[in-house]
Amino acid sequence: MNSKFKNQSSKVLILMGSDSDFEVMKKAAKVLSDMDVPFELDVCSAHRTPDRAKKYAEEAEERGVEVIIAAAGMAAHLAGFLAAHTTIPVIGVPIASGALNGFDALLSTVQMPPGVPVATVGINASENAAYLACEIISIKYSELRNKLKEKRKEMYNKVLKKSEEIKTKLQNI
Amino acid sequence: MNSKFKNQSSKVLILMGSDSDFEVMKKAAKVLSDMDVPFELDVCSAHRTPDRAKKYAEEAEERGVEVIIAAAGMAAHLAGFLAAHTTIPVIGVPIASGALNGFDALLSTVQMPPGVPVATVGINASENAAYLACEIISIKYSELRNKLKEKRKEMYNKVLKKSEEIKTKLQNI
Amino acid sequence: MNSKFKNQSSKVLILMGSDSDFEVMKKAAKVLSDMDVPFELDVCSAHRTPDRAKKYAEEAEERGVEVIIAAAGMAAHLAGFLAAHTTIPVIGVPIASGALNGFDALLSTVQMPPGVPVATVGINASENAAYLACEIISIKYSELRNKLKEKRKEMYNKVLKKSEEIKTKLQNI
Amino acid sequence: MNSKFKNQSSKVLILMGSDSDFEVMKKAAKVLSDMDVPFELDVCSAHRTPDRAKKYAEEAEERGVEVIIAAAGMAAHLAGFLAAHTTIPVIGVPIASGALNGFDALLSTVQMPPGVPVATVGINASENAAYLACEIISIKYSELRNKLKEKRKEMYNKVLKKSEEIKTKLQNI
Amino acid sequence: MNSKFKNQSSKVLILMGSDSDFEVMKKAAKVLSDMDVPFELDVCSAHRTPDRAKKYAEEAEERGVEVIIAAAGMAAHLAGFLAAHTTIPVIGVPIASGALNGFDALLSTVQMPPGVPVATVGINASENAAYLACEIISIKYSELRNKLKEKRKEMYNKVLKKSEEIKTKLQNI
Amino acid sequence: MNSKFKNQSSKVLILMGSDSDFEVMKKAAKVLSDMDVPFELDVCSAHRTPDRAKKYAEEAEERGVEVIIAAAGMAAHLAGFLAAHTTIPVIGVPIASGALNGFDALLSTVQMPPGVPVATVGINASENAAYLACEIISIKYSELRNKLKEKRKEMYNKVLKKSEEIKTKLQNI
Amino acid sequence: MNSKFKNQSSKVLILMGSDSDFEVMKKAAKVLSDMDVPFELDVCSAHRTPDRAKKYAEEAEERGVEVIIAAAGMAAHLAGFLAAHTTIPVIGVPIASGALNGFDALLSTVQMPPGVPVATVGINASENAAYLACEIISIKYSELRNKLKEKRKEMYNKVLKKSEEIKTKLQNI
Amino acid sequence: MNSKFKNQSSKVLILMGSDSDFEVMKKAAKVLSDMDVPFELDVCSAHRTPDRAKKYAEEAEERGVEVIIAAAGMAAHLAGFLAAHTTIPVIGVPIASGALNGFDALLSTVQMPPGVPVATVGINASENAAYLACEIISIKYSELRNKLKEKRKEMYNKVLKKSEEIKTKLQNI
Repeated sequence: MNSKFKNQSSKVLILMGSDSDFEVMKKAAKVLSDMDVPFELDVCSAHRTPDRAKKYAEEAEERGVEVIIAAAGMAAHLAGFLAAHTTIPVIGVPIASGALNGFDALLSTVQMPPGVPVATVGINASENAAYLACEIISIKYSELRNKLKEKRKEMYNKVLKKSEEIKTKLQNI
Repeated sequence: MNSKFKNQSSKVLILMGSDSDFEVMKKAAKVLSDMDVPFELDVCSAHRTPDRAKKYAEEAEERGVEVIIAAAGMAAHLAGFLAAHTTIPVIGVPIASGALNGFDALLSTVQMPPGVPVATVGINASENAAYLACEIISIKYSELRNKLKEKRKEMYNKVLKKSEEIKTKLQNI
Repeated sequence: MNSKFKNQSSKVLILMGSDSDFEVMKKAAKVLSDMDVPFELDVCSAHRTPDRAKKYAEEAEERGVEVIIAAAGMAAHLAGFLAAHTTIPVIGVPIASGALNGFDALLSTVQMPPGVPVATVGINASENAAYLACEIISIKYSELRNKLKEKRKEMYNKVLKKSEEIKTKLQNI
Repeated sequence: MNSKFKNQSSKVLILMGSDSDFEVMKKAAKVLSDMDVPFELDVCSAHRTPDRAKKYAEEAEERGVEVIIAAAGMAAHLAGFLAAHTTIPVIGVPIASGALNGFDALLSTVQMPPGVPVATVGINASENAAYLACEIISIKYSELRNKLKEKRKEMYNKVLKKSEEIKTKLQNI
Repeated sequence: MNSKFKNQSSKVLILMGSDSDFEVMKKAAKVLSDMDVPFELDVCSAHRTPDRAKKYAEEAEERGVEVIIAAAGMAAHLAGFLAAHTTIPVIGVPIASGALNGFDALLSTVQMPPGVPVATVGINASENAAYLACEIISIKYSELRNKLKEKRKEMYNKVLKKSEEIKTKLQNI
Repeated sequence: MNSKFKNQSSKVLILMGSDSDFEVMKKAAKVLSDMDVPFELDVCSAHRTPDRAKKYAEEAEERGVEVIIAAAGMAAHLAGFLAAHTTIPVIGVPIASGALNGFDALLSTVQMPPGVPVATVGINASENAAYLACEIISIKYSELRNKLKEKRKEMYNKVLKKSEEIKTKLQNI
Repeated sequence: MNSKFKNQSSKVLILMGSDSDFEVMKKAAKVLSDMDVPFELDVCSAHRTPDRAKKYAEEAEERGVEVIIAAAGMAAHLAGFLAAHTTIPVIGVPIASGALNGFDALLSTVQMPPGVPVATVGINASENAAYLACEIISIKYSELRNKLKEKRKEMYNKVLKKSEEIKTKLQNI
Repeated sequence: MNSKFKNQSSKVLILMGSDSDFEVMKKAAKVLSDMDVPFELDVCSAHRTPDRAKKYAEEAEERGVEVIIAAAGMAAHLAGFLAAHTTIPVIGVPIASGALNGFDALLSTVQMPPGVPVATVGINASENAAYLACEIISIKYSELRNKLKEKRKEMYNKVLKKSEEIKTKLQNI
């Protein structure tokens, strides 16, 4: 995939409603880096910078962005806001913040009205947002799919390794 | 107040995310009519007609609108969306619809980020949205405040009347 | 798009955990039909027919399926089960059934562990699952993207029409 | 606005059910100070000092108070109690305290019966209570509205600044 | 107990926030009638008739009322309001009404601050409110305690009878 | 298994807190009948007939009962009560009743303290309680395990049949 | 009241399901001590020592106990268990413990079936349990009622004092 | 039981979705060790190693495993996954992890469809899972039942001991 994506514009756009979401979302950035998917990441609030958010959504397609990842907490409107201004897939990451710890963000992100879907992942599930973005882009880039399959194997092996380690742990109870 | 408001432009703008919200929101219209407050009511979706919603919010102040009431169900973004585009007070009415019966709409409406408040009333509480709008406008129009006080007395007397009726009911258990 | 998809194998695979989910999921089928996206639909339970579900997931890619939509209620494991056996995008539709009315299905679908994402839409949001599938496939088929944009315009106009109708309704309160 | 409000009586009355709410509510005081809105703040419990709470509510209007902000935790009755004794707008701030972390306070504040609304903001959202108070008062004082608009611009620019900073953060992952 | 209570003033005062609560609360009246406990029942809202509610609470003790039962739905403040104005025991009955079906009323009733307790029973549990009132009054009137014990025996026997009937039902599956 | 169980005492004891639970629990009876497992079923309340419940639990083992199924709604204590008086496995079925629709019963049944477990199945999941009872008893009776395996095959085939039918349904949308 | 209660047997019996509840429940003991109400306190589990719990409940009345306070966490059955074995009032204190932080205990305590009430106070509200016990006992002992009234005045004055202090705090923001 | 189980293959199989669950699940291992029940413990994810999980479930019976304990957090599919591939009893332990603290895991584990039950214990209730496994196995091994009864007596005595200690604690308030 390197060959295809090198020197290309961003395929994935990650937007966060607040810079405090970065601690969670940098894991998404890490996954995309590992998979060699060009991406950009910015802070952009649906409520404090709506025009900028609109611009990001409206220009995404022509700029070559294939998937948007939007992260927000509490009354998390960002993913839905972006989805209202584009037809490229928008993945929503509900962020755990405030007194309800992301439960509000989950409902605000996933319960979209008919016609304007948001592909919602779990609360704080920034890695899954990145993997889902890769799965989606893989529709077009088969090399990326292969990387995903390798990643699955790594995950499989990592569990096997943990399986070994747990035996030692068990003996030390 | 009649004298003041007659032939005036709308003081309250009621927007609903879907025309199916009308059954709930017509009670708000009824309250405003009773209080002689000029208002307009429209269907306007944050997700299906974002530009129109933005226009409504941005032009509200110069058109003389003093308060906006926004009603929406599920991932109810409308009130927050409007609030992001204006500094006039926005009242949010979470509508009970879908599998979570308005609980999602409540959280999506009330849990706004700092700086962009939505004055949220109860689930389906369209009458209270209208009364709250009147209370807010009364800051400028003292006649309306007097009407609100009369209304409170009516409410008081209505309870007294129910108090009488309940005695009869009790005897017929 | 017709030209491209005609006589092609299914691009979208819709699986339901129970045939009782059909009343909800037929709307997804309707959307895909309208968008001329070849799809197939089947009943396939993660708990009662796990081998069949596994087979569906493992063979999807080579059969040309680009996106899977999985619908299930209660402890809704189907979407996650399929996601565990494939790297093509899996969209999960939590179905409202049983005493908790889909709230259990929502959490069981969306809260996936890192590495195995499910693109979750709202409870019973079968139409959004279909639209999201189209958005995803559009990455490869630009004609489908154009159809989605037309659909958004239709949605926009439908709201405008409702906006007209609401005026009449308002006068008849 | 300075010119108008100088030497004036309080426009906003902030009441807290417990002095332990002060850590949260001092942010509301800070916002009102920044906006040059005269306010007073007191501890006043609906359950431990009901007569005092009643007096505060009943005398608010004639003392020139235009908006009341009421903060309380758990079975948060304060805002509703005050609203029952006045027709000036009452803003309710549910405080996160106790085992349910403000979820009880949210429902106790927002779900008011018809005729006695409370303008509810998010859990612990004291700043939004203050901004909402300013938006409401702005109906009468246009200078304050201008300040609110400036504040929005500041918020906008603050996000832009964060947008810059995030790039650096990203490079240091 | 008849002999003791005959021609006496009410021992139990039942107040409901709305006359719509009567369908639920008449069962409490029925229990008290069965137990020959003199009671009165009225509609009295904490938000629409706060002064009247206050008067009821403040005069209860001197009028000979020993226990108050307060029923209310949604942001159910009535029981807490009354408890704030008296030191006689107040039993709260959360009423299932509105979109949250009594869950809001439960939290609004039970989560009282230290020093002002409400003895909360289950949602719509009007019979239990009456039985609890009887248990409390029985501290002073031993005859009433005996009646309660007889009632428990009746309950026991009623279950035994159902136990018989279920055998027949089982054979007709 | 017939041969083994014929003329034997009950292997499974089904107790319900109220006869109103019978509509749900008769499905458990049906499953056990189909599996030829001798059982008895009774109404027995932890709160209205605690001594009888205690007796049932304490005598179960010596009477040859191998598993108890306990069904109750709201503050569902029955399963836990029985578990406190025996060491044979107790399966709890939370019943959907009252305003919280079984959610209270689920938590009251499953959240048992260390040392006194209740094997909890889903809300109203009476069939699963019966199947679980069979799985448990199968530890001793291998014929019953074979029946369970056949049942799974039936379930598998039933899904296949539904899979056929759905194709017809799909063509008639 | 001293004169009356001195050398008397316990009027209030406090039982806790686990000794880990003592940190919460010692506040109830403190309140009863302050009010000079004789009480005893013990650990007694409904699930681990059911016979002992039963004995406590059955003998309470003849031992002169007038009110029982029962505290338990998670599937909190203790209060209901005791209520099933006595007709003296049982006050339930849901304890915040485990993953659901007392929410399960609240529902398990309050949602009792008809005929067997538990007077439930808030989560961890041990002080309110003690105050409620005093209010109940005051039906018979007027001296105790006077103490409760004095306590309310103290509470009132404490709020006034906090009201003074808050002014200083406000100036130091 | 020693005599019976010595040198035998594992009777209980404990599987955890993640090695991070070990801190919770080692208590289950401890209980089984104390009861001399041969067991094995492994890490095995339904989503990351589905084939391995399937193998474990399918081979369990012939390997002599009588009960499976499955622990998982968030969208906890492991117990249900295993239950779908075997007819031996599967006990599910919802693990408290992530933003919803095990509430999601509880619903994902317990709300299984008809025919494929999971015997669910409380959130993080690993000890209860082990005790339940022992209760189930005791159907066949009466020695183990005796051990369980002794354990109950220990529990009883432990409460009595705590009962003694609490008196000292009480005097030191």
